[in-house]
Amino acid sequence: MKEKATFYHAGCPVCIDAQNAVESLVDRARFDLEIVHLGESPDRLAGAEADGLKSVPALATAGRMIHLNHGADVSAPKA
Amino acid sequence: MKEKATFYHAGCPVCIDAQNAVESLVDRARFDLEIVHLGESPDRLAGAEADGLKSVPALATAGRMIHLNHGADVSAPKA
Repeated sequence: MKEKATFYHAGCPVCIDAQNAVESLVDRARFDLEIVHLGESPDRLAGAEADGLKSVPALATAGRMIHLNHGADVSAPKA
Repeated sequence: MKEKATFYHAGCPVCIDAQNAVESLVDRARFDLEIVHLGESPDRLAGAEADGLKSVPALATAGRMIHLNHGADVSAPKA
């Protein structure tokens, strides 16, 4: 059974760079990696914020929310 | 030939939590992961800053410096 990891972004340049890094780094044999663009999937925002999302890009896994550098606050995709 | 990934931290709680996540997430079959405690290895700080380190914890790989959440600015280990 693979663990789940969810990468949240909003298409910003910092997001795309972080996405490339995450896709390269994460062990896919052990983690199912889902990429969520919050601008295209705004219905995912509330759940992400409930899990601790403050800004994008970020990677959620095993109850942790890891913010990667800083592209934009999550208030941006709401606007 | 494995790629190199270097995790920089300073022993802070945010650092340790991020370290646990990184050690779990990173594909060790493809990346050699080095953990560097800048408080214990202050000689590594100048090189890390040259690579873009602004705060810890952070993960350097493939020319990128990915700051993970925010534990402390790198000025702290210098003090």
